[in-house]
Amino acid sequence: MPLVVRNTPRTDLEVVDGLAAAGVATVHEAQGRTGLLRADIRPIFRPARIAGNALTCEVAPGDNWSIHIAVEQAQLGDLLVVTPTSPCDDGYVGDLLAGSLLAHGVRGVVIDAGVRDVATLTEMRFPVWSKAISAKGTVKETPGNVQTPIVCAGVYVRPGDVVVADDDGVVVVSREEAATVLKAARDREASEASKRPRLTAGELGLDLYNMRGRLADKGVRYVDYTDQS
Amino acid sequence: MPLVVRNTPRTDLEVVDGLAAAGVATVHEAQGRTGLLRADIRPIFRPARIAGNALTCEVAPGDNWSIHIAVEQAQLGDLLVVTPTSPCDDGYVGDLLAGSLLAHGVRGVVIDAGVRDVATLTEMRFPVWSKAISAKGTVKETPGNVQTPIVCAGVYVRPGDVVVADDDGVVVVSREEAATVLKAARDREASEASKRPRLTAGELGLDLYNMRGRLADKGVRYVDYTDQS
Amino acid sequence: MPLVVRNTPRTDLEVVDGLAAAGVATVHEAQGRTGLLRADIRPIFRPARIAGNALTCEVAPGDNWSIHIAVEQAQLGDLLVVTPTSPCDDGYVGDLLAGSLLAHGVRGVVIDAGVRDVATLTEMRFPVWSKAISAKGTVKETPGNVQTPIVCAGVYVRPGDVVVADDDGVVVVSREEAATVLKAARDREASEASKRPRLTAGELGLDLYNMRGRLADKGVRYVDYTDQS
Amino acid sequence: MPLVVRNTPRTDLEVVDGLAAAGVATVHEAQGRTGLLRADIRPIFRPARIAGNALTCEVAPGDNWSIHIAVEQAQLGDLLVVTPTSPCDDGYVGDLLAGSLLAHGVRGVVIDAGVRDVATLTEMRFPVWSKAISAKGTVKETPGNVQTPIVCAGVYVRPGDVVVADDDGVVVVSREEAATVLKAARDREASEASKRPRLTAGELGLDLYNMRGRLADKGVRYVDYTDQS
Amino acid sequence: MPLVVRNTPRTDLEVVDGLAAAGVATVHEAQGRTGLLRADIRPIFRPARIAGNALTCEVAPGDNWSIHIAVEQAQLGDLLVVTPTSPCDDGYVGDLLAGSLLAHGVRGVVIDAGVRDVATLTEMRFPVWSKAISAKGTVKETPGNVQTPIVCAGVYVRPGDVVVADDDGVVVVSREEAATVLKAARDREASEASKRPRLTAGELGLDLYNMRGRLADKGVRYVDYTDQS
Amino acid sequence: MPLVVRNTPRTDLEVVDGLAAAGVATVHEAQGRTGLLRADIRPIFRPARIAGNALTCEVAPGDNWSIHIAVEQAQLGDLLVVTPTSPCDDGYVGDLLAGSLLAHGVRGVVIDAGVRDVATLTEMRFPVWSKAISAKGTVKETPGNVQTPIVCAGVYVRPGDVVVADDDGVVVVSREEAATVLKAARDREASEASKRPRLTAGELGLDLYNMRGRLADKGVRYVDYTDQS
Repeated sequence: MPLVVRNTPRTDLEVVDGLAAAGVATVHEAQGRTGLLRADIRPIFRPARIAGNALTCEVAPGDNWSIHIAVEQAQLGDLLVVTPTSPCDDGYVGDLLAGSLLAHGVRGVVIDAGVRDVATLTEMRFPVWSKAISAKGTVKETPGNVQTPIVCAGVYVRPGDVVVADDDGVVVVSREEAATVLKAARDREASEASKRPRLTAGELGLDLYNMRGRLADKGVRYVDYTDQS
Repeated sequence: MPLVVRNTPRTDLEVVDGLAAAGVATVHEAQGRTGLLRADIRPIFRPARIAGNALTCEVAPGDNWSIHIAVEQAQLGDLLVVTPTSPCDDGYVGDLLAGSLLAHGVRGVVIDAGVRDVATLTEMRFPVWSKAISAKGTVKETPGNVQTPIVCAGVYVRPGDVVVADDDGVVVVSREEAATVLKAARDREASEASKRPRLTAGELGLDLYNMRGRLADKGVRYVDYTDQS
Repeated sequence: MPLVVRNTPRTDLEVVDGLAAAGVATVHEAQGRTGLLRADIRPIFRPARIAGNALTCEVAPGDNWSIHIAVEQAQLGDLLVVTPTSPCDDGYVGDLLAGSLLAHGVRGVVIDAGVRDVATLTEMRFPVWSKAISAKGTVKETPGNVQTPIVCAGVYVRPGDVVVADDDGVVVVSREEAATVLKAARDREASEASKRPRLTAGELGLDLYNMRGRLADKGVRYVDYTDQS
Repeated sequence: MPLVVRNTPRTDLEVVDGLAAAGVATVHEAQGRTGLLRADIRPIFRPARIAGNALTCEVAPGDNWSIHIAVEQAQLGDLLVVTPTSPCDDGYVGDLLAGSLLAHGVRGVVIDAGVRDVATLTEMRFPVWSKAISAKGTVKETPGNVQTPIVCAGVYVRPGDVVVADDDGVVVVSREEAATVLKAARDREASEASKRPRLTAGELGLDLYNMRGRLADKGVRYVDYTDQS
Repeated sequence: MPLVVRNTPRTDLEVVDGLAAAGVATVHEAQGRTGLLRADIRPIFRPARIAGNALTCEVAPGDNWSIHIAVEQAQLGDLLVVTPTSPCDDGYVGDLLAGSLLAHGVRGVVIDAGVRDVATLTEMRFPVWSKAISAKGTVKETPGNVQTPIVCAGVYVRPGDVVVADDDGVVVVSREEAATVLKAARDREASEASKRPRLTAGELGLDLYNMRGRLADKGVRYVDYTDQS
Repeated sequence: MPLVVRNTPRTDLEVVDGLAAAGVATVHEAQGRTGLLRADIRPIFRPARIAGNALTCEVAPGDNWSIHIAVEQAQLGDLLVVTPTSPCDDGYVGDLLAGSLLAHGVRGVVIDAGVRDVATLTEMRFPVWSKAISAKGTVKETPGNVQTPIVCAGVYVRPGDVVVADDDGVVVVSREEAATVLKAARDREASEASKRPRLTAGELGLDLYNMRGRLADKGVRYVDYTDQS
């Protein structure tokens, strides 16, 4: 029986916005290289970068009823995360539903399925990360769970976890660890910022990262082209 | 033996252009959710939106001879629809052939195979929907049928059926039903136009589409997060 | 044991730049329709067109150590070509590494794997052709061969072979044949340039390419639509 | 609105059985190399070889209601052909439904979707050609057309067309041409039977098919390994 | 930092074995149509049917170190469940490791990656469900988590959850619900057993499942073939 | 222009047969984990294990002419290796051609494309490793190179290199290194044989491979389930 969970906890939006600023690649590293959705979940336009509290939703194949149920549970700063109960590329979200989501404070959509009206969504700058673009609309016969834990594109997501999405993909940060991950992400950014000018100036990664000693341990052999047999 | 059919009937261009204006998602719904090509047929640039009379063409794998045969059969307002006899990603159409198609009144190409010279085609704004982009050109050894019924990307298409293509995909409307579908599409657009401001103003789809009663029938249960065991 | 080959020969940059100007589709035809990488290797932004001397590099799955080794071997006008030892979509190259490559004269990257930081790379206009975009970074535990012959996306590439990449894909030209292929490519361009105005003026490919006689040989039959049973 | 067509014409079962005996590869050649389903439609056990009259059926994604409608329309010698309205790998047919189909004279199933209970179906020797094997069952909410023309795995199929399926795949023969194709298939078998002993005895295809003369026309060059530069 | 959790709870083996007897399709239905792994996880030989307590394990791409760590945590009746941190088809498990797993009571393997030595594993009747078969072995450089919750092929799995695998695929049942699901599965089997003879005797699903009334509600229309325009 | 190279060198058949006995996984490790074809090249029946001298052949898409050319160049102990110039799943080899190959001493086929008549080939026990099974036959219009170096399924293969194929996949060993690799493979087999009884007796890989010390270096942490927060 489908379940709709009300009043789920959210992550503080300051933390959410901090994670958006850090970006997906940095957040992924900062939390120990976990939480990344499958790489075939791609943005419908670029550049795009947002983060939000996961508003989770399961849908039957070819059926978007539960997305309408989810809209009622939305809060400002949410990001809708949709997973089908079996693989489906149909266009579950179009411009009407996007308008409804926006009206309820939702910042964007991550869906392991399809989306449609992408010309209009692009004009509206309503960001969507999806597995497919498809004009095929959906029926409203079979509802699914809303605001329960789900697996989306290979990652376990609970309502109120932070979802960060940009041109590189989508990563999920657990609500409990979000503040800690944000701190680690900022440290990582600082570390990268200090390396950037050195690399741009021509310093080699082999030196910057102290990798020369280990080259010998691994048996790397250097030969001159003209010395090969 | 390859067959070339001359003087096939076309759909009136006013109807064709009306369907282009409605767009693929609306037309697909308006004709009872049929006629949509596989979702991996994608435009080489966005935004793009056209419709035309299907100028159909079968090609051997790696061989574009019959496209040259098709050009001679083209009329103003046609849209070339190409299907290979076995799956092939080669680049069957390039900028030279696009120039030839344009000279004969063809508005664009839908092909369940590959296309090349996409930088030039994009500059020319010659729209192509294809399964692949590939620099690999083709030979001219094995002709195929031209202007016979074909299956393209999962849909049955006859010469003179209307093909509508935009950023969401490609849909085919039978010649006999085109005028009726156009009327239904316009009705549907009007209906959507009346709903858009209500959804944008925050009215829920659950109310707008009268879905609340059926929620109970389907056994949907609402619980508060803090009431879960 | 991993091998790094120093001082490999390069192709003259005048030839390399000439091949870039000709473009991938023309070069592919000019060298007898060989050397094209798989069509799923796509540019991260369009339009893009470059050529360079192949700086080759093998990487373990999820491990980009050998790319850092390769940077030290780079010369002005090189193009990094990376192949994983088993299929992997991880993001092997990001903006830091791109900055390092640029500092050492590398013009771009072709990789049968993933890339990340694509928003920044796009702003920098650092061109990459890849199989995937993925935020997932890599470790540095297992080095691989650098500047040895490799197979990348189905094509055999040796250090100093010319790699040409544009919106249509990527093609490899052997160092020994590069000058000859450049000449053939220019001849081909001239031939196409002479055909373009004739096709644009409406002359049919059937006539321009003398294909009418062979139509009968192949048994192509023309019928009128209304004459079909 | 879903349509169920009763009393559609069938092909004579003697012709159907003759085509089964010829096998898919031979029938495909005999009818001019057309009518072959996509190669990812595979048998659940091997060897298997059957033919039957197409009993056609469209299903919604994740919904097998119309298969139950189709069973009532079945006749002895039918072969159920199922296509989903959008791609779906769910297991539409299981052992209960197979028992029901058998009871109504259906010889097997061809489905551009999934099947389940394959251990039992294999024991029963009930042959199924499918795109997937999946334990996921289906709902019964949305009926589709039964016994109307459909496209299945890339091929247009009408009720009563002959469907031939074996270890190599599935081919469709139109009802009107079935007898002619059977004759051509038998001629082809005879021709192949005469060639088999000659090839087995070592005669070369180059000689048997008179291909030597054309080798020179195509510019094929023979060189000795030791004569290469 | 990789974590190894010792002494995780298991599900009673009587329940586990009961679920194996019910089979994947029945268990999936009995627990509300959830918990099914992606359909591309397939057995290396058929028929095969087992269930076990999930012994979970994360592996780096191309690296099977953590499987060796997992063996030490195994108990009689476990089933090893392996997920890579990025997609990888390498052969993580071969006959040596299978022997080691068997010696520690492990009944089989479910892996969202590759396996090798399948000829020997088949002879040994050691059952494996995998995404790929690949001769490519793995290194031992990067350990991952063992006996922590993971996502495998789209499903969330915790140590001691029940994993049921047969020719139709793989399903996961949570430890807490295993006994309840087993009861529901047995009820379902009884229900199916009562329907089987009726369907085999020719009773229609339309009647058995009381679907006739709803046909009219859905607007299904019956027409005779000869009455179509 | 297509080239046919005669009298290419072969590897001694004693070495070839020794490599077959070692099997693909062992040979792949023994030569430094290189030379493995893509994992989607699969045998049409199992078990199967052979090795042979590569008889190489390039084919145009949908065209098997050059395979007939290759037969004439065959010698006892050869294994035909076929690669298409663009991806193609057509059935290039059927039972007639298999009979011809057998008559000329060819032991089997490895093809990065399709094969047909698999029921007959299975009865004949003629082993084929292919990317697809397809009933679609091929034309004879465009010849390709025979006995030149090619790339097949991601690996560079020269005539007379050793190709080893079994249930795990296909690996290529260069002619010059074949004897050395055979020796390394036998050493590896001996090493594995000594480990097998220890693992089967329950000794852990962690101990057998001395991995315990490195666990701490990598920061692996053991916790008891009940001690987790």
